Amino acid sequence: MEEDKLRGKAEPSGWPAKAWSLLSATRSESPLIQCITNFVSMDLMANTLLSAGASPAMIHSADEIPDFTPHARALCINVGTLSADWLPAMKLAAQFACQSGKPWVLDPVAAGASSFRLKACLELVELKPTVIRGNASEVIALSNATLGTSKGVDSSHESTDAVEAAKSLAQASGAIVAVSGAVDIVTDGERVVGAHNGVPMMQRITATGCSVTALIAAFVAVDPLHALEATVSALSIFGVAGEMGMNLAKGPASLRMHLIDSLYGLDDAVVHSRVSITSFS
Amino acid sequence: MEEDKLRGKAEPSGWPAKAWSLLSATRSESPLIQCITNFVSMDLMANTLLSAGASPAMIHSADEIPDFTPHARALCINVGTLSADWLPAMKLAAQFACQSGKPWVLDPVAAGASSFRLKACLELVELKPTVIRGNASEVIALSNATLGTSKGVDSSHESTDAVEAAKSLAQASGAIVAVSGAVDIVTDGERVVGAHNGVPMMQRITATGCSVTALIAAFVAVDPLHALEATVSALSIFGVAGEMGMNLAKGPASLRMHLIDSLYGLDDAVVHSRVSITSFS
Amino acid sequence: MEEDKLRGKAEPSGWPAKAWSLLSATRSESPLIQCITNFVSMDLMANTLLSAGASPAMIHSADEIPDFTPHARALCINVGTLSADWLPAMKLAAQFACQSGKPWVLDPVAAGASSFRLKACLELVELKPTVIRGNASEVIALSNATLGTSKGVDSSHESTDAVEAAKSLAQASGAIVAVSGAVDIVTDGERVVGAHNGVPMMQRITATGCSVTALIAAFVAVDPLHALEATVSALSIFGVAGEMGMNLAKGPASLRMHLIDSLYGLDDAVVHSRVSITSFS
Repeated sequence: MEEDKLRGKAEPSGWPAKAWSLLSATRSESPLIQCITNFVSMDLMANTLLSAGASPAMIHSADEIPDFTPHARALCINVGTLSADWLPAMKLAAQFACQSGKPWVLDPVAAGASSFRLKACLELVELKPTVIRGNASEVIALSNATLGTSKGVDSSHESTDAVEAAKSLAQASGAIVAVSGAVDIVTDGERVVGAHNGVPMMQRITATGCSVTALIAAFVAVDPLHALEATVSALSIFGVAGEMGMNLAKGPASLRMHLIDSLYGLDDAVVHSRVSITSFS
Repeated sequence: MEEDKLRGKAEPSGWPAKAWSLLSATRSESPLIQCITNFVSMDLMANTLLSAGASPAMIHSADEIPDFTPHARALCINVGTLSADWLPAMKLAAQFACQSGKPWVLDPVAAGASSFRLKACLELVELKPTVIRGNASEVIALSNATLGTSKGVDSSHESTDAVEAAKSLAQASGAIVAVSGAVDIVTDGERVVGAHNGVPMMQRITATGCSVTALIAAFVAVDPLHALEATVSALSIFGVAGEMGMNLAKGPASLRMHLIDSLYGLDDAVVHSRVSITSFS
Repeated sequence: MEEDKLRGKAEPSGWPAKAWSLLSATRSESPLIQCITNFVSMDLMANTLLSAGASPAMIHSADEIPDFTPHARALCINVGTLSADWLPAMKLAAQFACQSGKPWVLDPVAAGASSFRLKACLELVELKPTVIRGNASEVIALSNATLGTSKGVDSSHESTDAVEAAKSLAQASGAIVAVSGAVDIVTDGERVVGAHNGVPMMQRITATGCSVTALIAAFVAVDPLHALEATVSALSIFGVAGEMGMNLAKGPASLRMHLIDSLYGLDDAVVHSRVSITSFS
């Protein structure tokens, strides 16, 4: 019944329960999540997954993807420190994930920063990610390139400005698209849901965006048939952990620590009182 | 006399003094430890060595191993984020360490995760590591592969289940073999010693296993003739630092911080009151 | 007038104002700083830049340097985990920075550790870095090699011993040269300025040296015409953050956290009361 509510028209009251059930499932099932990510984020991403109860595996060599990827429950690909020698393994892993029926999540970091990077991201989008999560500029760059349009990319875009770009990208790619910002926006191309949790200082910590993408992969792993709900829930849970951490933080480095501690310790009561998710359409 | 006791039959009362003497020697000698390790662990591993008083050097290029490795006092090789282009340098460094009479320590992360990785680990084992440290699954995978047997690999193995595998691997390889778990087990193929310190939450921090392997390298560097004692002592000291850190921690991220702070501040009294090591045979 | 004072003979009273103005400009302008750095330092370096208000971009692929580097306001190159496949991109980025009139900063980590590394550092020095920052041993190794002399390299050199080497390197290269130590020394080949802030325990945290080099890049980005003053100010501000952090720290890991928090929170009053800079010549 809970599920039905969520699939139809999201009831605000159903979201905290959904978010809590996904965090609980991650803790109890400890899904194995393969991450092919940038060098900057590996530490925080692995610790985010561990603190949420998942099992991270930072395995990126093409030599072991055929053996390993089919055993992972989800795959997270992040192009942050992309180089030509890493791209084939990313594509191979995405293919193995798809063939194995496993969800995979794409983080198109700085998609518009170079033509090399944009082309790489487009090639990855063609490999059918289950979810794409980026900031407004990244989603707009990717949406324009996917659709062949050429609106300007401006890093100052707010996530709400990117809603149309996200919907277009979702429709063209078949992926759930999430846009991080003051309010995180998630869409399947028709429905648009907003996740309101989080604090501004999280943007002053490197790799928080990368890490929430990995958390999305974990939540999608435990509920692959409801990728939109899993994505919204992961963004919201991570945001709640940030809010709880902010209560104790004196700056970005202590926030980083308290955020991870809070994610580890989140309980049902806090999730239910704090999760703030709304349907925009 | 202390040494004699340890070489013969370990007296429980001798271990704290041994552990303390190795930590003190690491602090006073500041041995240069070359680490060729995975991307995830580099930060925590370097900080672990620094907080213990050692001097880490994360140098992995084959182009500088001939110049550099002979000047290091020990080498730590960890295959966590293995790729084909890193393996030759790992093997070259191991060869230079052996030729220079320097101890080297192998961390066969996820040895059984792919045939590529298992083969790489076996090639490294053939290069005569002084110590091999892994979890139960890794040691069992490596032991079976080394011996040509084919028992199943199950990541849920407890370290005590892996004692026979560890003894076999130690005998076949000539290395001291350490198996991390609720109780850490160390063996030279005949003696089996258990290190009981540590807290479960350390498993929710990425790279703690990698980091204790580097600490083993530092302790073996300052006492290369007693590699078993150095290995047991490093596991125990790291575990004690974890216990002290746990007194202040609110979750895995604060435990990580307090663990390193505690390792830096450990004194004789704490080591003597906390170190818990037993001989199993 | 402030500027004139600094350009002529530095008045001690002018330095805190200069340091504060550069930190304020970094916070308000949020300059984009491209970092090609070692794997160990990426996390702390990015977080240092973020906490100072700058925008880090860890982009190292030669495939995107032509598109990206001209848009960065400064470039930071650090050879810590150098390998042959990274060097061409470092050189390419340095060339693009120079062609675009953007300042770039070199951190010649362990310059003397191998002939491969020393040669790479010399090739980078030939590409006209705006600033070179290293410890005494690194600067002496680089200075001797640049000048073709062959004094010994001893890692126990104090920064004051390296003054002559730094002046020679500055004159030969045209770069501002900074030597980290108990007192940080900065020279343009004629003037020599000392930055006295900081605490010894910062040396027990990996990547603090790398991170202050990135902070130098940020300060030089916002005041490229006064690279010496920007370099001195960055070293001093980072040192003050360390001092403030040390008031709260219980060891190297908590110092690392409090240092970054303090850098984020530094205000005019603390900067003015703490900055300690002197002219030696």
